[in-house]
Amino acid sequence: MAELVKVVVDAMGGDLAPVEPVKAAVEAVKERKDILVILTGQEEVIHSELKKYQDYPTDRIQVVNATEVIETAEPPVFAIRKKKDSSIVVGLKMVKEQKADAFVSSGSTGAVLVGGQVLVGRSKGVERPPLAPLIPTAKGVSLLIDCGANVDARPSHLVQFAKMGSIYMEHVVGIKNPRVAIVNNGAEEEKGNALVKETFPLLKEAEGINFIGSIEARDIPAGYADVIVCEAFVGNVILKLYEGVSSELIHKIKDGMMSTLKSKIGALLVKPALKQTLKSFDATEYGGAPLLGLKGLVVKTHGSAKAIEIKHAIFQCVQFKQQRINEKIAEKIQPAQFPAPDKE
Amino acid sequence: MAELVKVVVDAMGGDLAPVEPVKAAVEAVKERKDILVILTGQEEVIHSELKKYQDYPTDRIQVVNATEVIETAEPPVFAIRKKKDSSIVVGLKMVKEQKADAFVSSGSTGAVLVGGQVLVGRSKGVERPPLAPLIPTAKGVSLLIDCGANVDARPSHLVQFAKMGSIYMEHVVGIKNPRVAIVNNGAEEEKGNALVKETFPLLKEAEGINFIGSIEARDIPAGYADVIVCEAFVGNVILKLYEGVSSELIHKIKDGMMSTLKSKIGALLVKPALKQTLKSFDATEYGGAPLLGLKGLVVKTHGSAKAIEIKHAIFQCVQFKQQRINEKIAEKIQPAQFPAPDKE
Repeated sequence: MAELVKVVVDAMGGDLAPVEPVKAAVEAVKERKDILVILTGQEEVIHSELKKYQDYPTDRIQVVNATEVIETAEPPVFAIRKKKDSSIVVGLKMVKEQKADAFVSSGSTGAVLVGGQVLVGRSKGVERPPLAPLIPTAKGVSLLIDCGANVDARPSHLVQFAKMGSIYMEHVVGIKNPRVAIVNNGAEEEKGNALVKETFPLLKEAEGINFIGSIEARDIPAGYADVIVCEAFVGNVILKLYEGVSSELIHKIKDGMMSTLKSKIGALLVKPALKQTLKSFDATEYGGAPLLGLKGLVVKTHGSAKAIEIKHAIFQCVQFKQQRINEKIAEKIQPAQFPAPDKE
Repeated sequence: MAELVKVVVDAMGGDLAPVEPVKAAVEAVKERKDILVILTGQEEVIHSELKKYQDYPTDRIQVVNATEVIETAEPPVFAIRKKKDSSIVVGLKMVKEQKADAFVSSGSTGAVLVGGQVLVGRSKGVERPPLAPLIPTAKGVSLLIDCGANVDARPSHLVQFAKMGSIYMEHVVGIKNPRVAIVNNGAEEEKGNALVKETFPLLKEAEGINFIGSIEARDIPAGYADVIVCEAFVGNVILKLYEGVSSELIHKIKDGMMSTLKSKIGALLVKPALKQTLKSFDATEYGGAPLLGLKGLVVKTHGSAKAIEIKHAIFQCVQFKQQRINEKIAEKIQPAQFPAPDKE
């Protein structure tokens, strides 16, 4: 067994805190022996929550007190600066100081993103750390990179996203030689906005990635590529529309099933099987979005994350650490000041 | 009854031509007395197709010969220039020369867009004619403007899109005081990429539109706004992802229903009701995307459009003409060289 991987979990973050993060911590250490979970947040609240559980390895859950809570509505930069004793700031600092390997939070996305960059810091050579959620597809999952808060990326950012995303998909998700595609408004090479046109040849030339060209948004759910490269504004639209269309359609289907007596009876028979299939199209099964390219790992889970999602995120962190992803990223990302050597 | 509205239909355009366009023409003139349809394409092919039908007002279908066909794969600009006797070029020229009011095609989107701009020409003051499909929502339909081929729009383009889209939704679709929103990566006013940040205050100040602020992609399917303003790259992603997520999800649901004996029986009972509901989420019911801001109307229907979609597009053209949409657009769009008067 490898050494313990230390994962900080924000016990105060998200709509369902502290109940779900604490539950996730307990389940994670029960399920795997190589994990130590550190819960940050208001000590008393966490301890009284932990009391609900018996029969878990108590030596592998620690509590670190943090008296403040950053609310979702707070301006992120200001919140990170001001609330030095918040569960997010305390947790991220532990990663920065290498007292922990990773930080998982369902709290304010903005605060986690800003905090990750400011407090943990970027890996050498990484120009912009992308937030990269896994999205469900017909074939499993794809990594949508970037969905972060910094929009209007440069071509060099997108090339780094492609490289970091490939490493993640290969070594954390386990897809050999992952197919990389750039989101475009057509399949032809001459298509694209200024950013895509400039990035396309760079991706074609980039070494160590399996670039397959453009992907139209229509083909994303079918699973045509494993690493979907785009700048964050577009990534945000894709991620949220995925959610919006699915939930609207499922609503429509439920309404349809309830519309006649005959269909109501049918619905009862169909329900168990349908539940199983729809689960595979549910983003929350995949355990949160990593913020890549930092000196440590930061994972953002949904604001409404339940224990199962947070637990998966914790496991992701273990895989990330054991697979030495940050070292692999550092090897592959060349610092910008040194131009890549010419090919011979 | 108003005078006849003359709509040219491209009889050679789309995967199902000439069968579906010709069928649409016949059904359109049978259903409404105020329409004259002009079918462009290879005369003999069209006439032999028309022979299938009896009992329709033959005097309100005309055939104009065009020997060439533009294929979807051809580079649009080149095709429009070279194939002067194609169904698309001949049809668009009739609109240009005011021999017809509108042109409907299921053929090459690129050729229709380029041809519309080059051959029909822009209305005075319109900087960029947007392609604006109607997309299904929980509340009906919204206009997604722009999904055209020209990406990287300027703020002034987006403001014009908002105005043209409002006129269209009010007078063609019949929504009073349509709500206009700009696609953004968050609901807060400080969110956005450079384009959105620059456009937002201009939309806030623009007169004659009901601007309600930003819309996140998640809220588009729920029908939070009637006119969804975005630049064409983002519009393309939204339109195609809508299609991709819906079709993937419907696949999953069908698979789920077929997975057990119990669910198969349920599926039989549920099917008729479900079909009806899913129909309301089917973009093809709404009759194609208008290319707005031209000296005439050009409507692009899906490449796989059936007669019903083409017929709806023809009806859209009638509404467009009878509601004097182009005149309304011309009144509302100030030519760029004259700055808008200051408010007092």
